[in-house]
Amino acid sequence: MDVFLHPSERIDDLLTHELKIIQSHEVFSFSMDAVLLAQFVSLPIQKGKIMDLCTGNGVIPLLMSTRSKANVDGIEIQERLYEMATRNIQLNQLTNQIQIHHGDLKDAPQRFGHGVYDVVTCNPPYMVGKTGEINENEYIAIARHEIHCTLEDVIRVSAYLTRSGGKVALVHRPSRFMELAVLMRKYRIEPKRIRFVHPRHGAEANMILIEGIRDGKPDLKVLPPLIVYQENGQYAEEILEIYFGEGGKS
Amino acid sequence: MDVFLHPSERIDDLLTHELKIIQSHEVFSFSMDAVLLAQFVSLPIQKGKIMDLCTGNGVIPLLMSTRSKANVDGIEIQERLYEMATRNIQLNQLTNQIQIHHGDLKDAPQRFGHGVYDVVTCNPPYMVGKTGEINENEYIAIARHEIHCTLEDVIRVSAYLTRSGGKVALVHRPSRFMELAVLMRKYRIEPKRIRFVHPRHGAEANMILIEGIRDGKPDLKVLPPLIVYQENGQYAEEILEIYFGEGGKS
Repeated sequence: MDVFLHPSERIDDLLTHELKIIQSHEVFSFSMDAVLLAQFVSLPIQKGKIMDLCTGNGVIPLLMSTRSKANVDGIEIQERLYEMATRNIQLNQLTNQIQIHHGDLKDAPQRFGHGVYDVVTCNPPYMVGKTGEINENEYIAIARHEIHCTLEDVIRVSAYLTRSGGKVALVHRPSRFMELAVLMRKYRIEPKRIRFVHPRHGAEANMILIEGIRDGKPDLKVLPPLIVYQENGQYAEEILEIYFGEGGKS
Repeated sequence: MDVFLHPSERIDDLLTHELKIIQSHEVFSFSMDAVLLAQFVSLPIQKGKIMDLCTGNGVIPLLMSTRSKANVDGIEIQERLYEMATRNIQLNQLTNQIQIHHGDLKDAPQRFGHGVYDVVTCNPPYMVGKTGEINENEYIAIARHEIHCTLEDVIRVSAYLTRSGGKVALVHRPSRFMELAVLMRKYRIEPKRIRFVHPRHGAEANMILIEGIRDGKPDLKVLPPLIVYQENGQYAEEILEIYFGEGGKS
């Protein structure tokens, strides 16, 4: 399908399952974090409803559509990214399965309702408030810093949208894990599965994947660590499998 | 030094630094958990005060004495183990550095005082209350099950004994990690370093080592995972180094 491209945009292969994705280094490019979250989250296979908060250019809904036939909603606050995500769904002819919505996730409870989702995912901004070096590019600053939403907003809204027994899966920085854990408990999303991502053997974790169950009982599993790079600097086999699918490098 | 041995007791090499330790399969044998905690905890090198709660036969104080000249107190509720720990300190001629006390850790605040320790360690019973299969042997049941103290007792007492800026280090099961995290926060011990121990590559974690700072600021580091066994079934190099010291297998 032909789609309109803005200046600076390009169409990349999403590598797996012949998906294509529009990105732009000036506006939004997806990260490994999004790819790993889309692969980590437990999904219903045949049916159900999934919500992706802070969906950016729609990369997480696109990747989840390769694992599940459930209906996926994505919400994005930045109009420019909302519009890019909408074209990405069109480009991949997935408008029957994925709907992208423009707006503030804090309005999601009244727009989408209480306990109607089986799964909520989010790759939120990692940096507290406006701390740290803020990118001059506003698009990128909003994606990285808690300018329009805090971690508590994300978790409160996720808990509201998710049915009892449904799942909430997030990716974040390990440095904020305690806050994540305390907030998930506060909003009755019991953490059940955690996976830490380490860049190399012998290195501290630089990413945490966490999944909780709405109203779940305490019983946490810490999955095997995911090591991104081998000693020779190449991607580890598991990373290649996640990126390129079971058929290996295409 | 000659010491008295009860029936069923034997003297084992503690492998590192020529330490010896009295144990008994009928009463108490130290586990890898204790060895890993004694190596994981951050210790003052030259001086200071350290407390080991639930000290058992004193294995953690003995191992910490190889890393620190600080004074170490250990408290043990079971008289039979207290007495074994006392002989272990005598056997290793460490009575000047290590004192073992008999009693309930819940009485430790009034016995030892507020904020007087630089470091508190504990390898507590892992099993909630009297759930699960309880060993018929009472000595072992008390070491494994929360019969005489709960996790909250351990953390509340640890927080009381530790000075502001001091460290509390624990080993536990990952399944109870959320409870651990919430209780540490509740008693103002901010988790700062975590290490997960996995029995093999590709296996879930079966142990968590966690260290927090009394009144510390939130900023958690997740250290590289510790994998116990290599693919060939042998201990991993790091485990051998922890057990046998830098000189390798003795």
